[in-house]
Amino acid sequence: MVSGAYSLCPSQVRPAVEAYTYIGKAIPKLDAPDKLTGRATYLHDLVLSGMLHGRILRSQYPHARILNVDVSRAKRLTGVKAVITYQDTPKARFGFAKDNLPLKGDKVRCLSDEVAAVAAIDEDIAAEAINLIKVDYQPLAAVFDTEQALAPGAPQIHESVPNNTITSLPFQFEYGDLGQAAEEADCIITDTFILPYVTHCCLGTLSCLASFDGRGRLTMWSNTQVPFLYQRELAGPLAMDPGDIRVIQPCIGGAFGRGLDVYPFEPICALLAAESGRPVKMVLARKEDFIASPTRQPCRIELKSGAKQDGTLLLREAKVVLDCGAYLSWGAVTPWMMMATSTTLYNHPATKFSSELVYTNNPTTGAMRGFGNLQITFAIESQMDALAAELGLDPLELRLKNANQPGQVSPQGFKITSCALSETIKRAAKALDWKGSRGKSRGWGLACMFHVGGGGRVYRSDGCGAIVKVDDSGHVVLITGATEIGQGSDSALAAIVAEELGVPLERVSVVNSDTDVKPWDVGAHASRTTFVAGNAARMAAAKVKEQIKEEAARLLEARADDLEIKAGRVFVTGSPDKGLEYDKVIRARHFRSKGQIVTAEAFYDPPSEMLDKDHKGNISAAYSFGTQAAQVEVDVETGKVRILKMVAAYDVGQVINLLGAEGSVHGGIHMGLGYALSEELLVKQGKILNPSLADYRLFTGQDMPPVEVFFVEGSDPAGPFGAKGLGEAGAIPVAPAIANAIFDATGVRLKQLPITPERLAAAIRSA
Amino acid sequence: MVSGAYSLCPSQVRPAVEAYTYIGKAIPKLDAPDKLTGRATYLHDLVLSGMLHGRILRSQYPHARILNVDVSRAKRLTGVKAVITYQDTPKARFGFAKDNLPLKGDKVRCLSDEVAAVAAIDEDIAAEAINLIKVDYQPLAAVFDTEQALAPGAPQIHESVPNNTITSLPFQFEYGDLGQAAEEADCIITDTFILPYVTHCCLGTLSCLASFDGRGRLTMWSNTQVPFLYQRELAGPLAMDPGDIRVIQPCIGGAFGRGLDVYPFEPICALLAAESGRPVKMVLARKEDFIASPTRQPCRIELKSGAKQDGTLLLREAKVVLDCGAYLSWGAVTPWMMMATSTTLYNHPATKFSSELVYTNNPTTGAMRGFGNLQITFAIESQMDALAAELGLDPLELRLKNANQPGQVSPQGFKITSCALSETIKRAAKALDWKGSRGKSRGWGLACMFHVGGGGRVYRSDGCGAIVKVDDSGHVVLITGATEIGQGSDSALAAIVAEELGVPLERVSVVNSDTDVKPWDVGAHASRTTFVAGNAARMAAAKVKEQIKEEAARLLEARADDLEIKAGRVFVTGSPDKGLEYDKVIRARHFRSKGQIVTAEAFYDPPSEMLDKDHKGNISAAYSFGTQAAQVEVDVETGKVRILKMVAAYDVGQVINLLGAEGSVHGGIHMGLGYALSEELLVKQGKILNPSLADYRLFTGQDMPPVEVFFVEGSDPAGPFGAKGLGEAGAIPVAPAIANAIFDATGVRLKQLPITPERLAAAIRSA
Repeated sequence: MVSGAYSLCPSQVRPAVEAYTYIGKAIPKLDAPDKLTGRATYLHDLVLSGMLHGRILRSQYPHARILNVDVSRAKRLTGVKAVITYQDTPKARFGFAKDNLPLKGDKVRCLSDEVAAVAAIDEDIAAEAINLIKVDYQPLAAVFDTEQALAPGAPQIHESVPNNTITSLPFQFEYGDLGQAAEEADCIITDTFILPYVTHCCLGTLSCLASFDGRGRLTMWSNTQVPFLYQRELAGPLAMDPGDIRVIQPCIGGAFGRGLDVYPFEPICALLAAESGRPVKMVLARKEDFIASPTRQPCRIELKSGAKQDGTLLLREAKVVLDCGAYLSWGAVTPWMMMATSTTLYNHPATKFSSELVYTNNPTTGAMRGFGNLQITFAIESQMDALAAELGLDPLELRLKNANQPGQVSPQGFKITSCALSETIKRAAKALDWKGSRGKSRGWGLACMFHVGGGGRVYRSDGCGAIVKVDDSGHVVLITGATEIGQGSDSALAAIVAEELGVPLERVSVVNSDTDVKPWDVGAHASRTTFVAGNAARMAAAKVKEQIKEEAARLLEARADDLEIKAGRVFVTGSPDKGLEYDKVIRARHFRSKGQIVTAEAFYDPPSEMLDKDHKGNISAAYSFGTQAAQVEVDVETGKVRILKMVAAYDVGQVINLLGAEGSVHGGIHMGLGYALSEELLVKQGKILNPSLADYRLFTGQDMPPVEVFFVEGSDPAGPFGAKGLGEAGAIPVAPAIANAIFDATGVRLKQLPITPERLAAAIRSA
Repeated sequence: MVSGAYSLCPSQVRPAVEAYTYIGKAIPKLDAPDKLTGRATYLHDLVLSGMLHGRILRSQYPHARILNVDVSRAKRLTGVKAVITYQDTPKARFGFAKDNLPLKGDKVRCLSDEVAAVAAIDEDIAAEAINLIKVDYQPLAAVFDTEQALAPGAPQIHESVPNNTITSLPFQFEYGDLGQAAEEADCIITDTFILPYVTHCCLGTLSCLASFDGRGRLTMWSNTQVPFLYQRELAGPLAMDPGDIRVIQPCIGGAFGRGLDVYPFEPICALLAAESGRPVKMVLARKEDFIASPTRQPCRIELKSGAKQDGTLLLREAKVVLDCGAYLSWGAVTPWMMMATSTTLYNHPATKFSSELVYTNNPTTGAMRGFGNLQITFAIESQMDALAAELGLDPLELRLKNANQPGQVSPQGFKITSCALSETIKRAAKALDWKGSRGKSRGWGLACMFHVGGGGRVYRSDGCGAIVKVDDSGHVVLITGATEIGQGSDSALAAIVAEELGVPLERVSVVNSDTDVKPWDVGAHASRTTFVAGNAARMAAAKVKEQIKEEAARLLEARADDLEIKAGRVFVTGSPDKGLEYDKVIRARHFRSKGQIVTAEAFYDPPSEMLDKDHKGNISAAYSFGTQAAQVEVDVETGKVRILKMVAAYDVGQVINLLGAEGSVHGGIHMGLGYALSEELLVKQGKILNPSLADYRLFTGQDMPPVEVFFVEGSDPAGPFGAKGLGEAGAIPVAPAIANAIFDATGVRLKQLPITPERLAAAIRSA
């Protein structure tokens, strides 16, 4: 921990942001000019000498036995350099539950299943070759919802998994005396919430580029968010050693959790490269991207809350059934986060959480920004609102009464250090000029959120490494384990290094794209990068600062401890005249006898714990909180919702890059509004009916309401300069804030997303 | 120093090579499969999105005033995105003596001089645009040889340099009492040697690729050998900060010293990228590569040697005049090495060296493998042979009598630590079944050499950095500052890391191509990489080994000092059963509480000195020695020389990669034979008359004689595992060995290279 000097709780002491040069200031993203001008190099832009183009033949049936695959005509097509089927590949299963194969041999389990693949000299020939492959199937009975899948005698999707129920991930937790709590409660309400299929819709569609070198090492250009886990995961189906896979991440055109898993097209691409002896690139077009991408986990949540008449919460019970689709992904771990919010967002003496993960022949689901938290927060925050209505309390007061507080330890054992949830509620309410006023078509709604903010330990190490090196001219390079997926981590990390080192930000650049080069990191997930990679970067920068000060002490004939560095100048504290430019000090250190260059490395693993078998353990070194509030206007005839204003107030400790943080919340609100109001993958008989940007109804920039973002001042004791994680937070409480505002406006509560005009109008009519 | 345990002198103690797994063994080059199969990515193969192609308009005159440059028609050509002249560029001079500009404004000084440049969407349009540029010149009187250039009233090439003499590099040295030595000498001979223009003829022609990012940083893909000096040097004419230039070195298709300098096409390419806002690639075709490349420095050497009748050398005087061409390069420092060999290869109580560097309107000269040593060694070793003949001594005996010995300090202050020159003479002679037997068209000849072998300090730091990191699966990456230019340094460094760490070589890979990533290194020159980068790599690997042993000690409940690592297993010395696989230890260290990854960095700067103003100082931490011997057959009618056999014996301390070392000598002999017998750039009136592979008469593989290479066993006290540098050594003594053999065969001594059949036949006829 590098910032122990800061306060435990934001309300106690406020660090002097004014003293900072970069921390807490508005810093344009370092990569913004490249992205704006089209200079940024995405995977789609890459061209290697001799590169082939890969393409996949997918299943025609959601569930069928494969009887025969005839690739003979495809192989004869001029320009085709490789055609592969199950027969040509190692048979090692892969995926989160080792339930998948790159190319399917026995049967297909969903419509995106991969049956054969080709590599050809151009995309057209590859497409033509795919059309020449003939597959004989024997269709099988299929299941398309979780109830059907769990029914006795249902078709079995994986032979080794009886009843299509995944029992290996038993997210079950109980705490306190539920019976007593129910007895004491003046009011208990129960609801069922239905969450839809939505997808990441990254601007950069699924893609990869595989190339083997002459030593048999594979270089994989990938949009993964977790390059070091990706090495491990990809090695399986290729029957390779993870260390023989070098992962290079070009500029990533969106990930949002999609990059946690390895998908079949990736080992397929590598297998085509091995087969052809040439680099192979695979870029999925938009329609295929819709079909083959994972989705946010759709689920059904049964939620029960109980409270005293004065609003004191006594119990919360959640039961979640998730449709995983045909294969498990990291999405199957989303109950981890659902459970965390369910047990910890508010205080209640008794709580219970259970979940069921079910295989179906539907599209495969995955991780998506918020990692289950959008689903459970929609349920909880909708029900909090309903409870307030039931008890005749102001929803704001109900939340304040039960809000988590600093110093608490949650039922699961989460140690809440810094926590300003209450302040965020007040700040958001104030910004919206809060007043609940049901009816008259206008309404106010708010919703809170809780999320991991100091890493999220789902792997044995939650650490990140950093190397800082400063060249003779004073240019600073941070080589970080972290992954920039557009969230702005490079800019935040550069600001941390510049601040710690006392050098101008424009002298700092960040390298983060090559597993052969960067030190280990568990990946970009759980909103952990600013916190974990930030601490690592700060530690490495601090070591480098010591090296510079040590040399400057020699040159200035001063004690290193008496020196400081600011704006690139090393000087004796209190005697700014007695100083030197830092680059001059570096050259002196390098060019003297027994010279040394200026470089240091650090590795930071937060002081958190894996959940134990009872689902207890402090999973994060810090937790983030926030509140969003919405004012909406509803056309009660058409059901059309107009959002007049959204406000967001967050406790993320010390903000690092104000512009980046605001942008992150804006983006989260955008994604959350799509989830709340418009986006849904329509899935029927396992088939996605609207696989296009025209039909998917992605929330557009044009639809965005005015947004105000506030950060409640504070500092986390363990975060770099007091910062906590924010990445996912912006998206989490949007939908319930909107739903609550709609309820406030119309008296109608919808428990299913998205709240489309059709659904809302119908509900208003029937109310 | 990491290997102090080894012996000072090879003849004293021999380290147990048998104890090594990789050191001293024959290791195929790591990059060989990629190069053999065409997978290796050279600069020529690179394609960036939106990339333009650059082209240069060169001078029509060797010396002329530029009156006007009209680019209007070129600018109007469709597909042309940038046209630049002197007017459009920063005016900062660059180059070794800051005597050059990317594009010339006032006048041109040689036929390769750059007058204008274009960037266009393809190469054809760029070529067409160049043809549309009209330049008006006023031709000026020019000088094409050094005598002419030094003559009073000669046309002045650079206004600021009177008499075309470069006085800023006064390589003048005198030691001992020359008068007394001359008095004591029984025999004094004086010769003049003429060395020709030869060029590197790299398979990869001159090329670069420049791309600016949105922050204004330039990424330069380059074939430079000295990436960190390149940053600095390129920054000048671009008016940029060196740290804002990121240099990436793709697979380099030959360099041989050519990559020490920045050439005008490189800033021009960057300026075109800046002007167009797009990446610009510039690849010189073979003819332009001949014209615009630097050449080995041609020179005239006046050499005097004196000895007693018994062969004891008493004096050596060398006076060298070098034709630098129109601009100075690192080639202008070649007298540094000429002086070193002249003063140190043999012992003599009195010695003198002087040199004169002259500007002409001839092609620009540069550094080339051997860095002046081929020129001076041809002179010295030819004259040693002549002296032996004069004294009636066996040339072998004369050399043995005067050979440098371990423990000596040379007139310039070079500290000879390990030295087995005498052993190499004996070994080479034995291998060739040595017998001098003049006449009868067959002859034997030998020649010795001396070179820096432990770095060569021509810059304030002669250091190199290394980072070693080992991933969870046990894959080891060495990030080295060193530059692989085809010399096999990656393979040698990987072997050093594998040996030090005790892991299989196939688990080690090397990263060395990006200045943002790799730690500083002065560059690939002076045969320094194995020694300097090898020591750095070994030091970093040793630190990593300590980390692994420390963790293993915990797991095995042993003392770290009692552990060793071999073949990837960490075990208690003497109890091989009590051990663990190293990757398991690494995972244990990473995944425990307060886990750490395995990584370390090191920087090694050899204990050497810059020459002081009197040209004294121990410029290298070690010196390498060698002898080559040739047996030739001469057709006295045609002058055609057939080499029956070449043998080479070297003292490079402990060989690291036997295959690589042998290959290096083979390659050196190939280059040396071209220098001796066939290669010459014919330059007339400043114009290269034979700028093609057909006419340049590069020595071919087909012409290669049988070659035997021997390494005299030994170990240097400061080298990594006892190794010294070898890179340039193979080329150095070839030409005099051949010339001496020809003399032995014919009684005719040629003092001008190459010894073409025409020249030799003419000399035989006139003898």
